[in-house]
Amino acid sequence: MTAPAYRRLSVEERRGQLITTALVLFAHNAPEDVSLDDVATAAGVSRPLVYRYFPGGKQQLYEAALGSAADELRQCFAEPQTGPLSRRLSRALDRYLAFVDGHDAGFAALLQGGSVAETSRTNAIVDGVRRAAAEQILLHLGAREPGPRLRMMVRTWIAAVEAASLIWLDESKRTPLEELRDWLVDHFLALLAATAAGDPQTAEVTRNALALERPDGPVGRLARRAAPVVGDALHLL
Amino acid sequence: MTAPAYRRLSVEERRGQLITTALVLFAHNAPEDVSLDDVATAAGVSRPLVYRYFPGGKQQLYEAALGSAADELRQCFAEPQTGPLSRRLSRALDRYLAFVDGHDAGFAALLQGGSVAETSRTNAIVDGVRRAAAEQILLHLGAREPGPRLRMMVRTWIAAVEAASLIWLDESKRTPLEELRDWLVDHFLALLAATAAGDPQTAEVTRNALALERPDGPVGRLARRAAPVVGDALHLL
Repeated sequence: MTAPAYRRLSVEERRGQLITTALVLFAHNAPEDVSLDDVATAAGVSRPLVYRYFPGGKQQLYEAALGSAADELRQCFAEPQTGPLSRRLSRALDRYLAFVDGHDAGFAALLQGGSVAETSRTNAIVDGVRRAAAEQILLHLGAREPGPRLRMMVRTWIAAVEAASLIWLDESKRTPLEELRDWLVDHFLALLAATAAGDPQTAEVTRNALALERPDGPVGRLARRAAPVVGDALHLL
Repeated sequence: MTAPAYRRLSVEERRGQLITTALVLFAHNAPEDVSLDDVATAAGVSRPLVYRYFPGGKQQLYEAALGSAADELRQCFAEPQTGPLSRRLSRALDRYLAFVDGHDAGFAALLQGGSVAETSRTNAIVDGVRRAAAEQILLHLGAREPGPRLRMMVRTWIAAVEAASLIWLDESKRTPLEELRDWLVDHFLALLAATAAGDPQTAEVTRNALALERPDGPVGRLARRAAPVVGDALHLL
């Protein structure tokens, strides 16, 4: 059944099919547990055909699959710039966490480091995704020329999101994803408030963002639930 | 001048001297830029002597130096369990950030990934430091059996501290370390409050921690500076 399909695919289609097939395998296995034969078998083609498209072998195929995954991840943070910031952030996180869920073993192997397939090129791809995510978030914050404090805040939050994703995978996905997402949004909002306390630019974007929030949204919920905790700190004012 | 010293050192002393010498070189250079000859020259001994102590060559020496650095890092978070939590955290961060400052190139090469010296063993050493730091912080929070939310909070904050350290190095150490430290403490406090809002255990440890804080300390300062920002969210309550 695969032979006619084999003949019908164009060069670009075949290349895309091999990358998609490889990505599925690399998503659910550590790179050292995927062989070029596995990819050939899963794609229903011969090993020499895979080599014709990827003369660099498994490493080249891994990097192509990673590049394709990176494009998908970059899309997670693309979101219309309307409505409350917390809702935009929740939507982006829903997509990001669904990606983590769907690429579990590969995501963990890539980000935990020490993988045989890790090179300066794969690190550059991962860093590119982090940078793109930071730029998107800064756009949503309406910061045209973000200063060092605001940049630092966004980038450390992204590192925290990655760490939380790895812990979630390590703990066998025990926490419901909605709970994890809501906590990450709360994390962002708390960090924004703490950073705004010491940085005028962050204070301004926070003020603008708060004006778009609604009482039944995440900020209102966090404010109501945090009130008793903050109340305990009133003697410090 | 080195020959008499050469003869006087015991096996353990010599081993220690080689590790200390290697750590200085690995602290300020990427591992690929340090050779066994560099270590021998800096220690004033012959290359064969280094091999006698480290038959595994440069990689073995790198891992021994990393192990020694890890011991030092673990000590950063050891702090008497008295006084305000924010002060304990500030002191631990002062030591941690001084370590980052003193081991800049090696720290960045290790944590940015993709280094030639990175193996599952070096990753295990780094993870061991992260785990030890998390345990120390949970002890300071007085959490005897910390639940998943509190653990997640502490571990993501540690990831944020690492990310902030790398950004600080990447930006040529432009921000004064005290400013970075104070912001990281604020980050922790804000995250604690946001997590307490949804987790009874975190709420309890937060209440206990706040009772030890003083108006002129970091929590008081953050509360006063954050008040106008939080005030903007009052319409959401």
